[in-house]
Amino acid sequence: MNPEPRLVEVRKNVLKQNDLVARALRIRFRDAGVFVVSLVSSPGSGKTTFLERILTLLRPHYRVAALVGDLATENDAVRLARSETPVKQIITGTLCHLEAAMVQNAIEEAGWSLGQLDFLFIENVGNLVCPSSYDLGEDLRVVLLSVTEGEDKPLKYPTIFNSSDVAIVTKSDLAIAVEFDWESTRRNVYAVRPGMRIFQLSAKTGEGVEEYLRFLAERLAESRAAAAV
Amino acid sequence: MNPEPRLVEVRKNVLKQNDLVARALRIRFRDAGVFVVSLVSSPGSGKTTFLERILTLLRPHYRVAALVGDLATENDAVRLARSETPVKQIITGTLCHLEAAMVQNAIEEAGWSLGQLDFLFIENVGNLVCPSSYDLGEDLRVVLLSVTEGEDKPLKYPTIFNSSDVAIVTKSDLAIAVEFDWESTRRNVYAVRPGMRIFQLSAKTGEGVEEYLRFLAERLAESRAAAAV
Repeated sequence: MNPEPRLVEVRKNVLKQNDLVARALRIRFRDAGVFVVSLVSSPGSGKTTFLERILTLLRPHYRVAALVGDLATENDAVRLARSETPVKQIITGTLCHLEAAMVQNAIEEAGWSLGQLDFLFIENVGNLVCPSSYDLGEDLRVVLLSVTEGEDKPLKYPTIFNSSDVAIVTKSDLAIAVEFDWESTRRNVYAVRPGMRIFQLSAKTGEGVEEYLRFLAERLAESRAAAAV
Repeated sequence: MNPEPRLVEVRKNVLKQNDLVARALRIRFRDAGVFVVSLVSSPGSGKTTFLERILTLLRPHYRVAALVGDLATENDAVRLARSETPVKQIITGTLCHLEAAMVQNAIEEAGWSLGQLDFLFIENVGNLVCPSSYDLGEDLRVVLLSVTEGEDKPLKYPTIFNSSDVAIVTKSDLAIAVEFDWESTRRNVYAVRPGMRIFQLSAKTGEGVEEYLRFLAERLAESRAAAAV
């Protein structure tokens, strides 16, 4: 069905190159003791609002920073700057995903010392297809799905759910208004990735936020304990 | 910023090839007198629900058919079949957009006679980035944006708004619940594409549906009048 064998071949080389950069990044992150979380979702599922809330709540207790990918605007970086954490925007132009080399360059340009950070968040371009194939060296990939998008998304975009570690169902405050079916969503997530951890969350009301913060703290502690062995 | 000059070069050739197929399709569509409408949007903005409603309402008066693109499932074709119109699913695998050759093949496989149709709808893969560069030979490209996705999407995904002819703001029944700002949305659409026609619509309550149907009927009549000259 794919009409471009040449495109596929070149893409494979790009992916291979990306994996090498991602692997080097992962080693740097581990050595520096920073826990890296990337966020993927479709446009408008609430990544930036969610991240702003998380950064604001983490900041008094942890050293945090964020990279945000976007095609064209710096809106997200401006919004996230309100959390008073260091934020750097990556403009991708027409590219529908972030790549490991962009993350690497952005860290250099920002001049951040990774050893001075506990958490680094990476917000990918809003897209449920392209980002799935690009490892960014992150420790945890989180896929967000808002209740307004419908329960079938895990089945329709299986690769992104498969390549993610955790799913967060956002905008839970709107669940009743859109007659969201939690049971069928869980079933669809498990069909693609059995046993995947699913958080139910509203950045507006705060539902589920504490549970997610506890989870992040645990994962940071585990990761440092493993690195110390 | 783009780390893959080779990928860009190959992509240009793919696009060129796509444009040739799209141009041939457009001539075929015009000769057959069928008006072709494609729909693009992010995942979960309501393309399928909207299309089901439109097909159901058009069917008593017009001969209609639909092609639906998806990565993995036939869910959309099953849903649209309830409208009792001929529907064919195009499975794209890991490809994040439809291409003109896929549309051409799907029409052959479906065995539809284009001269027997008034409207052909093409629902693209849910994605605000990739579909923007691929002409499908359509007469009208419609970009959908749901009120739950936020007002900033035209600024963040300018190419898809620029390459579309008409914008539809969907799920207007949820506008109050999500405190949707119509004025700022209009401003953002016009910033990217001045004077773009914008419909405000709810497939659930039916708001704006009649206006959109009238618009389609006018465009079909205009297109046939122009072809007859």
